[in-house]
Amino acid sequence: MTQALPSWTDGAARRAIIDFVAAVTDAAGPDYVPTPERIAVFDNDGTLWCEQPLQVQVLFAFDRAAAMAKADPSLAQRQPFKAFLEHDQAAIHELGKEGIFEFAFAVHAGMSIEAFQDEVRQWLTAARHPKLDRPYPQVVYQPQLELLAYLREHGFKTFIVSGGGVDFMRAFAEQVYGIPPEQVIGSSVKTELQESGGHFSLMKLAKLDTFDDRAVKPANIGLHIGRRPILAFGNSDGDQAMLRYTLDGPGRRMALLVHHDDNERETAYDRDFKLSPLTETLDRAEEFGIQLVSVKRDWAKVFPD
Amino acid sequence: MTQALPSWTDGAARRAIIDFVAAVTDAAGPDYVPTPERIAVFDNDGTLWCEQPLQVQVLFAFDRAAAMAKADPSLAQRQPFKAFLEHDQAAIHELGKEGIFEFAFAVHAGMSIEAFQDEVRQWLTAARHPKLDRPYPQVVYQPQLELLAYLREHGFKTFIVSGGGVDFMRAFAEQVYGIPPEQVIGSSVKTELQESGGHFSLMKLAKLDTFDDRAVKPANIGLHIGRRPILAFGNSDGDQAMLRYTLDGPGRRMALLVHHDDNERETAYDRDFKLSPLTETLDRAEEFGIQLVSVKRDWAKVFPD
Repeated sequence: MTQALPSWTDGAARRAIIDFVAAVTDAAGPDYVPTPERIAVFDNDGTLWCEQPLQVQVLFAFDRAAAMAKADPSLAQRQPFKAFLEHDQAAIHELGKEGIFEFAFAVHAGMSIEAFQDEVRQWLTAARHPKLDRPYPQVVYQPQLELLAYLREHGFKTFIVSGGGVDFMRAFAEQVYGIPPEQVIGSSVKTELQESGGHFSLMKLAKLDTFDDRAVKPANIGLHIGRRPILAFGNSDGDQAMLRYTLDGPGRRMALLVHHDDNERETAYDRDFKLSPLTETLDRAEEFGIQLVSVKRDWAKVFPD
Repeated sequence: MTQALPSWTDGAARRAIIDFVAAVTDAAGPDYVPTPERIAVFDNDGTLWCEQPLQVQVLFAFDRAAAMAKADPSLAQRQPFKAFLEHDQAAIHELGKEGIFEFAFAVHAGMSIEAFQDEVRQWLTAARHPKLDRPYPQVVYQPQLELLAYLREHGFKTFIVSGGGVDFMRAFAEQVYGIPPEQVIGSSVKTELQESGGHFSLMKLAKLDTFDDRAVKPANIGLHIGRRPILAFGNSDGDQAMLRYTLDGPGRRMALLVHHDDNERETAYDRDFKLSPLTETLDRAEEFGIQLVSVKRDWAKVFPD
């Protein structure tokens, strides 16, 4: 037998996870949960992969904006295009999380979902993370890959519930996380079925459908899953509603929060990361019943080899 | 070995299904489809269960409207309340499919999803179908229960994609069809997370989110599944876009259409059922490559014992 969760140190977080999974899978115990109800939801940016200095999808939008400005130089004078072209982080942060993502979504309007995902896949394998200097599929957190697999081995169905674009995440979630497209929930734009020459495509429109953050996360869990999760994992105040909604269901539940406190192996940040701060959820984690996960203390290893 | 699909007669439809499943599951053959891509989508009303004289959810709304009018008699004078209270089919049909469903959704605004589903489950077991005189969980089509199970045995993931309300269908789909909530897609109202005394609930609002019919079905497949199905099954023009979107993907595909042509064992209807007519899709089925399924000829048995 290999040890469970080898990239987790033998601390409180790892022990709490193993205890929880043992309790809900013990058919003779008081906390048993039938397999179909073992729903686990994970935020993506900052929970499953690195979101510093900016969320990966924002970095992707930089390159798309550059390509668009090449085709139409007048764009370079307009905001927020200008900020994205100049990688002007101060101006970008001014837009706020939703504003930035809306722009990142808008630059792909008019493409079919399938063509968009081809472009995402090409970019993800070719581009390198500016700070970690490795391909994007390797900026995922190794302890979380192990946790996802561990939960699935114990009959859990694992979902992503993230502010990131749903079509963007689905382009790699199956290969990288083992999570199929139908278990990825995210922000979305409206799409429209278009017929051309007898062929049917779903085209991405420039209209936001849902920005999947804060109280919208539980609403999207209601819409897409239709069952309250028994485990939720996040890393910011944007995840608080999802964590507390999960904990509030009947029976045994678990909510976890990554605290990025390791400046040696990645970036230490919490309340000062304006785009997605961690403040109240950190301060009141114990009161809410949320298990803190310290990158420094709980993760023996951060990224895959 | 028991025979596959025993409630299907040994006709063209059954043979086409068995051929298709054999082809896409033959790992050495040219039409092989890996398991995660074996997505099958089914309409619900008229495809998986009886929608005559009206869709079950409309009948459910009759009873809810009656209870509301008891509490507030002034409602009885207002349309469309009046039509629902008097079961005035002509006036109800005037509302059109979307209008009727909007009303059926609106009468449950202000409830939490969980409370709503408790009510649906109670009603479904207590009430009886007005024409078939049996409990609603038994107005499902036996051949379709067998087909759902047959597909799942061959590695398919089965989904519902219906104009019916998603929370309504999820209240019984797992027990009746073996389809878990997260694989049920339907029309939906907006919901809102409400906190009360430290408890969190998703409340149904009076605002329509999506009416899942016609071109909206493929768009919702894109949003919820994120992968083009390889098999789709419907029964009305409202399913045409989903059937053709499915057939248009690469590789081998299958689309099927129930034609209700048996007035002895259930109701024969097609182009005259105003709420959800079958006209163009029937006339052009062969041209589109859609396999017709005749209730009279292809189903040896219609309802479960």
